[in-house]
Amino acid sequence: MSGKFIVIGERIHCISPAIRAAMETKDPAPILKRAKEQLDAGATYLDVNIGPAEKTGEELMKWAVKLLQKYFDNVPLCLDTANKKAIEAGISVYNRSKGKPIVNSADAGDRAVNIDLAAANDAICIALCNRGSGGLPNLDEQNVMCQEMLERGLGLGMEPTDLLFDPLFLVIKGQQDRQRDTLTFIRELSDMGLNTTGGLSNVSNMMPKHVRPIMDSVMVAMAIECGLTSAIVNPCDLRLMETIKSADIIMNHTLYADSYLEL
Amino acid sequence: MSGKFIVIGERIHCISPAIRAAMETKDPAPILKRAKEQLDAGATYLDVNIGPAEKTGEELMKWAVKLLQKYFDNVPLCLDTANKKAIEAGISVYNRSKGKPIVNSADAGDRAVNIDLAAANDAICIALCNRGSGGLPNLDEQNVMCQEMLERGLGLGMEPTDLLFDPLFLVIKGQQDRQRDTLTFIRELSDMGLNTTGGLSNVSNMMPKHVRPIMDSVMVAMAIECGLTSAIVNPCDLRLMETIKSADIIMNHTLYADSYLEL
Repeated sequence: MSGKFIVIGERIHCISPAIRAAMETKDPAPILKRAKEQLDAGATYLDVNIGPAEKTGEELMKWAVKLLQKYFDNVPLCLDTANKKAIEAGISVYNRSKGKPIVNSADAGDRAVNIDLAAANDAICIALCNRGSGGLPNLDEQNVMCQEMLERGLGLGMEPTDLLFDPLFLVIKGQQDRQRDTLTFIRELSDMGLNTTGGLSNVSNMMPKHVRPIMDSVMVAMAIECGLTSAIVNPCDLRLMETIKSADIIMNHTLYADSYLEL
Repeated sequence: MSGKFIVIGERIHCISPAIRAAMETKDPAPILKRAKEQLDAGATYLDVNIGPAEKTGEELMKWAVKLLQKYFDNVPLCLDTANKKAIEAGISVYNRSKGKPIVNSADAGDRAVNIDLAAANDAICIALCNRGSGGLPNLDEQNVMCQEMLERGLGLGMEPTDLLFDPLFLVIKGQQDRQRDTLTFIRELSDMGLNTTGGLSNVSNMMPKHVRPIMDSVMVAMAIECGLTSAIVNPCDLRLMETIKSADIIMNHTLYADSYLEL
């Protein structure tokens, strides 16, 4: 996970009515369509969010993993649910030829146990630098959380690069004065040689629809300059993907060619 | 020059046939039109490039300064020519109510004398971190040049903020592996509390026309994150201006409002 920026496509998400219905009825078409759109647009990983899925999660995650990996050449996946058994079930049928599965996600609070789950299954784990309670952490507190999760993972035999630290992208409308801290934190994580990710478009949450791709693009350019190595985003946002590809050129992660936006 | 990013509009330039003809015939209309377009688009300063103008420079610069400041409420200007007498002539008729004149530019070689000119006239001076001979400087050499020019200016009674250090934006097609050095240098200059500027769109020189606004926007977002305080750019590039306005929000230089792109 070094070099070229890794795009994790966020659009297979049960919050979408079409995807929810497809998951309920095990209808492959809407899921495959959305997977193809994201891969064509430049996603490397696909996030598969099945929601809490308390009853049917294991069967559903297995079905989705097998479906997507069958049709898209063992595409690497990010397994996204609060149901731990469903994540383990997904990993049990997962083909690693294109990359380890990613567990989405652990945090420094109750969900820290997902680091254990990832370690036990040789998976990558997203490690959100937040406790999930006690209010918004400051930069010093986030550094402590990062250390806690890193030590937990390393103690279980993980490589440092098996953790994707999430700096917690905050909504500008409400937390405008915290955005530079997020960027500073990304730089600190990068300076430690750690990999990073996050739900970057949260920064533009509640902004007018035409503004969001603009703001998200500026944030991703700044974050990549600070060393962000991946993000969970909508790869069908053309402006965002143009920005990521250009940022990879400036950072010298990919070699410039006049056609680089089409590649 | 702190806080909000300063846009210096680059489009009153004798390399443009329409502007060259207007300067030769002292025709106000094309110059006023291009000034208005840039100010409407969000420029703060206007660059006035009259070329070498060895014979007619003094008269021409005086005419242009008086014309632009009369029609646009003493708009602050950046006087851009190799003809030192023309710069002094321009300053002699310049109204400072909206900002000091900027001398464009000094370097760490033969053009270092323009720092003396700026100091003698209480003007701001662009200080290009380059010698103009001896090949492309590396980062260490650029830091030495910055110190030389800073000491020269301070020795003549300038404030540190009266120098706008130009990190020398290099063409990606040819110097792709130097782009991160440029960003690092901007961060170093910013950490010293220095103001910065530069011809940022040079990075996309020789790229396809549709690519340039995309690449320039990503570079400006990254550079602002590193602390760049101004740039000499085309403010009529909508994508670039959207990026600069959004970057000012993320950096907390301006307060977010849903209408910020229209402001």
